[in-house]
Amino acid sequence: MTYCLAIKVDEGICFAGDTRSNAGADYVTSCRKLHAFETAPDRAFLLQVAGNLATTQEICNWIRRDLLATDGRESLNTVQYMFEAADYVGRISRAIVDRHAAALASSGVSGESSLILGGQIAGQEHQILLIYPQGNCIEATTDTPYLQIGENKYGKPMVDRLVSTSISLEQATRLALISLDATIRSNATVASPVDLAIYRAGTQQQPIFSRLGDTDPYLINLRKSWNENLRSSFDALEAFDWETMQEQPG
Amino acid sequence: MTYCLAIKVDEGICFAGDTRSNAGADYVTSCRKLHAFETAPDRAFLLQVAGNLATTQEICNWIRRDLLATDGRESLNTVQYMFEAADYVGRISRAIVDRHAAALASSGVSGESSLILGGQIAGQEHQILLIYPQGNCIEATTDTPYLQIGENKYGKPMVDRLVSTSISLEQATRLALISLDATIRSNATVASPVDLAIYRAGTQQQPIFSRLGDTDPYLINLRKSWNENLRSSFDALEAFDWETMQEQPG
Repeated sequence: MTYCLAIKVDEGICFAGDTRSNAGADYVTSCRKLHAFETAPDRAFLLQVAGNLATTQEICNWIRRDLLATDGRESLNTVQYMFEAADYVGRISRAIVDRHAAALASSGVSGESSLILGGQIAGQEHQILLIYPQGNCIEATTDTPYLQIGENKYGKPMVDRLVSTSISLEQATRLALISLDATIRSNATVASPVDLAIYRAGTQQQPIFSRLGDTDPYLINLRKSWNENLRSSFDALEAFDWETMQEQPG
Repeated sequence: MTYCLAIKVDEGICFAGDTRSNAGADYVTSCRKLHAFETAPDRAFLLQVAGNLATTQEICNWIRRDLLATDGRESLNTVQYMFEAADYVGRISRAIVDRHAAALASSGVSGESSLILGGQIAGQEHQILLIYPQGNCIEATTDTPYLQIGENKYGKPMVDRLVSTSISLEQATRLALISLDATIRSNATVASPVDLAIYRAGTQQQPIFSRLGDTDPYLINLRKSWNENLRSSFDALEAFDWETMQEQPG
């Protein structure tokens, strides 16, 4: 399983994802689910992947092959808009799933994947788009400025409460870490280390990557502080009427 | 959909559940999912239900019919242990599902239900047990002193962080309300009003019921305080190194 989250704020985009990959319960490995690409200097893209690992690796390989090709074919460098980039990646995803569909179906395995493409083309707004296994896509809006793929439920409530496009990129990153942490605590198939990538709007520079393992001092401190703060918040909640009554002399 | 939660603490048991019932997206109603039973004075039971409404209503009717019968048949009054009570309810659930299985299968509808049975028989410990659609059951343990049925993921992380058997029954109730609130915010098929039932261990009295709608002053205040406390907790988290560096004069 996987949990990846992208939050789009005014200042840019924060991408966060776990690194657990498993084929069944007894073949567990760690792998990167955030992928950057060497593109022209007027654009930057980052792709988050969930689903069949063979499919998602093949998607990244095809995207890179198209970027290196010199025959003028469609690639992340030729698309003019973010939605065209998402459509292009969606078609690659469909083509790869279709290639293996018959063989996978005979084994009862799904080759599908869900993807989040984020980035910016110079002169246009930075965007994040969720590409469905069917190849179509949706874009995050100001009302709901985040997208999730994989095991999305555990980490959703806190994001719903705290997200807005006006929070800073650093706040968005802390919120993503909190959302990841909730999921990692509740689901054994989502695990550290956590990969982060931060794209600052208007720069068209490659996102800055960092990986936070369980021994990372910042992550340790964040988890501890958040846990303590939540407990204090909980203890500070107002008592029920009947508790107050019990405290009065009888 | 449904979300019901039972937390067992040293002082007793808190049961909480939503009241949304829906057949498809366009036939939405409200119905009780916590059910008490008129039993002998040495025992008290409460049943939380999720799944097919016809099945869960029939389960409650059969349980009540057995309690009223005078032919010495098995009932919640004849069982000697909580696990026997859960086994009895599990067999009723199976029998009802089996009765309708052929007809339901032809319509592609599931008749299954998941149940949480909680309560106490005098002289024994108070317990909560989750009864699976297959009729078997598991008991909550000291390590994980809560059980959930229905849409359980959104509300799980906060319970995992804050629950223990040593918190008060009132704290458990506030925790259950927080867990319900997270689920209601994130899933449109789980909705207010929230039904609560509280059983104080050692009393063998019927659980005390209350229903909190969206206009309930305590629930309004709890939601507001919790939201504000979470936001303060979030704002108080330590900055990243790179934020601190940005703040220094260049």
